[in-house]
Amino acid sequence: MDGIVNTSAAQLAARYGGAAPDVAAPANQVLDTLLGHRSIRAFLPTPLADGVLETLVAAAQSAPTSSNQQAWSVVAVQDPARKARLAALANGQKFITQAPLFLCWVADLSRLSRLGKAHGRHLEGLDYLESFMVALVDAALAAQNAVVAAEALGLGTVYVGALRHHPEKVAEELALPPNAFAAFGLSVGHPDPAVPSAVKPRLPQSLVLHRERYTVADEPAEIAGYDQRLGDFSERVGMGRQDWTQRMISRVGTAASLSGRHRMKEALRALGFTLR
Amino acid sequence: MDGIVNTSAAQLAARYGGAAPDVAAPANQVLDTLLGHRSIRAFLPTPLADGVLETLVAAAQSAPTSSNQQAWSVVAVQDPARKARLAALANGQKFITQAPLFLCWVADLSRLSRLGKAHGRHLEGLDYLESFMVALVDAALAAQNAVVAAEALGLGTVYVGALRHHPEKVAEELALPPNAFAAFGLSVGHPDPAVPSAVKPRLPQSLVLHRERYTVADEPAEIAGYDQRLGDFSERVGMGRQDWTQRMISRVGTAASLSGRHRMKEALRALGFTLR
Repeated sequence: MDGIVNTSAAQLAARYGGAAPDVAAPANQVLDTLLGHRSIRAFLPTPLADGVLETLVAAAQSAPTSSNQQAWSVVAVQDPARKARLAALANGQKFITQAPLFLCWVADLSRLSRLGKAHGRHLEGLDYLESFMVALVDAALAAQNAVVAAEALGLGTVYVGALRHHPEKVAEELALPPNAFAAFGLSVGHPDPAVPSAVKPRLPQSLVLHRERYTVADEPAEIAGYDQRLGDFSERVGMGRQDWTQRMISRVGTAASLSGRHRMKEALRALGFTLR
Repeated sequence: MDGIVNTSAAQLAARYGGAAPDVAAPANQVLDTLLGHRSIRAFLPTPLADGVLETLVAAAQSAPTSSNQQAWSVVAVQDPARKARLAALANGQKFITQAPLFLCWVADLSRLSRLGKAHGRHLEGLDYLESFMVALVDAALAAQNAVVAAEALGLGTVYVGALRHHPEKVAEELALPPNAFAAFGLSVGHPDPAVPSAVKPRLPQSLVLHRERYTVADEPAEIAGYDQRLGDFSERVGMGRQDWTQRMISRVGTAASLSGRHRMKEALRALGFTLR
């Protein structure tokens, strides 16, 4: 990377913990925003300016969507009491109440289902796992555009997968109709400058990017190197030494490690998804 | 929107077919890129510059990922013969062979599975639907960052959901290990300037954005208005008059309308996903 002095090069080094791929992208505000992403878990109480929510949703709606199905919705929660109740359902994470805005991203087949009913039709295709996957991917593409837009506006965000700990209770809180599922949350607000954040190193690109066909040749050695770099990083930012390998094994090692989400299929069926 | 003259305002009007929400975002290169998205289905044969693929993947790896699981991979296909075989499996879409790069985004639990095995462990959490959903969402967040990065570099993209028509055959072509699933493709290349593209209007924001709780009050009238605007748009760009309502009903009306994807659960199980 010697000799490349644009911002992206420094960000790439941070992104890979020093083991950055050899790219030569021109300095670019969009790439800088993407490569500079870090999750924010401490927010100022400052409210969002008028129009920010609508801008984030317009960015989200600008994302691609499968066959223009637009099989997602978002519930914007700003009421402190509702944020607190949702936080309690989502592992008690404090930043949910702290941030002025909590977006609940909904994999939403209910709109198409209502459309069918209004025309006297049960839309059978919606009963299949495929349609649920379309809705989930649509919601994710939309949400990620909102994340990028928020960061472009100087805001910080963090996704909240723990919103899936109690899907039925969350659906009740948000008054979701059948065939709508709050897939994940997103806290949005002004980052607290007193709490530092950092770009977290990812796996080396060689493990994630495969050329023509999937290969696993150097995986053990590459993962050992990543364990080392992530350990160095987590120690440096004061989180104590973390090891990716051990963290992953404890994160998905047992059904219990899924924090209640092992009953996802049952929860989705209770919410009206047939998942054939 | 009178009086707001930045690029985003014009893009918002295009995005909503004239029924744009009242936002006042400052001119910003990132927002312009997001709001200006359109899918590109005609590409020049021009190859991508060196480093572009690596830049796109670095942007993808910069996206958030659930608990840093990084449960996705991408297979970059540039070999014309392989692109042609994949195109044949994905509804014969011509732009797949036309674009210099076809990215296959993989919901990938195999890396974590191998990590467990290397430590003498079956990671039971990976057997649950929840883990498959994490991998699918991780892949989508990553892919969308790559889309935004590509557009920032002046390239065009289009997602290919038809890559799910024959999941087992695609897995074989890409040599995917068990517990890896090619969730969707993405063609990337230089847009053919001779083939115009346009920003497609989306549903009015009021149908997608809910405040505090989900509401459906004005849906039928709002959808009728959208049918009108989308019809006007599709007629104007020479695609003939399209009606969202009728298109959606035919797209998901029956199992057969899913073009083979009604057997997704069976296909995923064949690929090693238990989906408990």
